[in-house]
Amino acid sequence: MIIVGELINASRKSVAAAIENQDPAVIQKIAADQAEAGAHYVDVNAGVFVGREADYLKWLVTTVQAAVDVPCSIDSPDPKAIEAALSVHRGTAMINSISLEKERYDAILPIVAGADLKVVALCMSDEGMPKTVDDRMAIADKLVNGLLRNNVALENIYVDPLVQPVATRDDFGIEFLKAIEKIMTTYEGIHTLCGLSNISFGLPERKFLNQTFMTMAIAKGLDGAIVNPLDSKMMASIIAAEALMGKDEFCMNYLTAFRAKKFEF
Amino acid sequence: MIIVGELINASRKSVAAAIENQDPAVIQKIAADQAEAGAHYVDVNAGVFVGREADYLKWLVTTVQAAVDVPCSIDSPDPKAIEAALSVHRGTAMINSISLEKERYDAILPIVAGADLKVVALCMSDEGMPKTVDDRMAIADKLVNGLLRNNVALENIYVDPLVQPVATRDDFGIEFLKAIEKIMTTYEGIHTLCGLSNISFGLPERKFLNQTFMTMAIAKGLDGAIVNPLDSKMMASIIAAEALMGKDEFCMNYLTAFRAKKFEF
Repeated sequence: MIIVGELINASRKSVAAAIENQDPAVIQKIAADQAEAGAHYVDVNAGVFVGREADYLKWLVTTVQAAVDVPCSIDSPDPKAIEAALSVHRGTAMINSISLEKERYDAILPIVAGADLKVVALCMSDEGMPKTVDDRMAIADKLVNGLLRNNVALENIYVDPLVQPVATRDDFGIEFLKAIEKIMTTYEGIHTLCGLSNISFGLPERKFLNQTFMTMAIAKGLDGAIVNPLDSKMMASIIAAEALMGKDEFCMNYLTAFRAKKFEF
Repeated sequence: MIIVGELINASRKSVAAAIENQDPAVIQKIAADQAEAGAHYVDVNAGVFVGREADYLKWLVTTVQAAVDVPCSIDSPDPKAIEAALSVHRGTAMINSISLEKERYDAILPIVAGADLKVVALCMSDEGMPKTVDDRMAIADKLVNGLLRNNVALENIYVDPLVQPVATRDDFGIEFLKAIEKIMTTYEGIHTLCGLSNISFGLPERKFLNQTFMTMAIAKGLDGAIVNPLDSKMMASIIAAEALMGKDEFCMNYLTAFRAKKFEF
C-alpha cells in the first residue's frame, strides 16, 4: 500500500502561514512526522497562493527533502508550478494529477510523457464528475491509453476513481468500490490511489466512516491512499486490512505495528 | 444484513450453568439484549451436553421465544436435537448447519427438504476444510444444487464459506473474501453468512481484526453474520459498511444509529 501524506496543504491555515513566513521548521516537522508514521510520499500543495504557487511549491519540495528521505507528491494542476517543483526534486516524484479535462490533460501530458515519474490519473472530464462505474471506466480508459501511448509505464499510473459523497446518492459508495475492482482487474499491474474523505461529506462520525470505507476499498483492490498518516485508527485499519488481504507476509508488518502499540487508540 | 446473535452458546460457562440449572432469566436476558441490539435471529447451541442436547435445545427455544419475538438459529449437527427444537419453534427457524460431510448431509437434508426453513450451508466436506476459492466453490456448488433439488428455495440458503486463520496462511483471508463475491454473483438471490472470528486466531488485537475483516467481507457482498450483537464497534462497523454499500436508503439507519449514540465507544 502506497501512503501519500496529505498534511502539507496550504488550505490548512498553519501550513499557509508557514509557507508565507518561509518557516522551514514547521514544514519539516510535518514532513518528518508523516514519514515516520509510514508515508511513502509527502504531498505538497500551495494551490491557494495564486501567482506564487510555482515559487512556493519549489520551496516546499526543497524544504521537505532537506528533512526527509521520501519523494514528494506534487499536487497542482498548473504545469509551470509542477515544472518548478520538479526542477529541485530528488528521486522519483509523483504528479497529482492529470485528468481528462482537456486543458489539464494537454498541460500535464508533456511533463509526464516518457519521464521517470509516477502520475495520478483522476477520473474527471469536461463533462463533469463521474457517477457510475461505467462513467469512471470510460474516463479511465482514455486516460490510461493516452498515458501508455505517451510512454508512461503502466506501473507508474495511479488511477483515482474520484469519490463522491454517499449522502448525496446511495450508490455513490458502491459505484466507486466497483470501479476500484474493475480498474485493478482490467489493467493488470496498474495502481489505484485516492483521497477518501469526501465519501462522508454531510454525515456525522466522518472519521469512522472514512476508516470503514478505506477498509472496503482495500478489499476491492485499492493499493494507494492519500491520507493523514498521523490518524492512528486510519493507519491501523490499513495495516490490518493489508494483512487480511494476504499482502503482509506472515503478518509481520501487522505484528510489528502491534508491538509498536499502533493499535492502542 | 441478517444478524445472528451468537451469545446463547453452551460453550460459554455462564450459559452452560443457566441451561443445567434451567434458569430462564439468564437466557432470556441474553436473548432480549441481543434482539434489542439488532439480532434478527438468536442462535441456540447446547452442543456440549452429550445425550441431553435435544432436551436442552427444546428448552432453549421455548425459553428464548417466551422473551423475544425473533426466530432462532438452531445450532446443531444432530437431526434429533434439531427436530426437538423445531417441534416447539414459532416462525421460520434457521438451521445451522448442513455441510457436505456425508453423514451430516444425509441427516440434515430430510429436515430442510421442502420445509419453510432457512439453512446455513457450510463449505466443509469429508475431504476436510477448504483452502482456496475453488475448493469452496466446488463444495458450495454441490450443496446449493443438492438443496435446490430438494425444494429448498435459493433465497433460504445461507452459504458459509468457512473462515480460516490468516496467521496460518497468508492467503486464507483473501481466498475467503473472493469466495464470498463468487458465491453472491454465481447464485443470484442467495445469501452468505458466517462467523468471522476465526480469521484472527493466533494474532493480537483480535476484535479490531475481526471488525476490519467484517467490513471487508461486506464490501465483497456478505449479507449475513453470526456475531455478538453487544459488540458495539462490530455493530457500528456493520451499520457504516451497509450505508457505504448503498444498502441503507438515504443513510437513515446510519443516522438513526448515530442519534442512538451507537458510534460512541
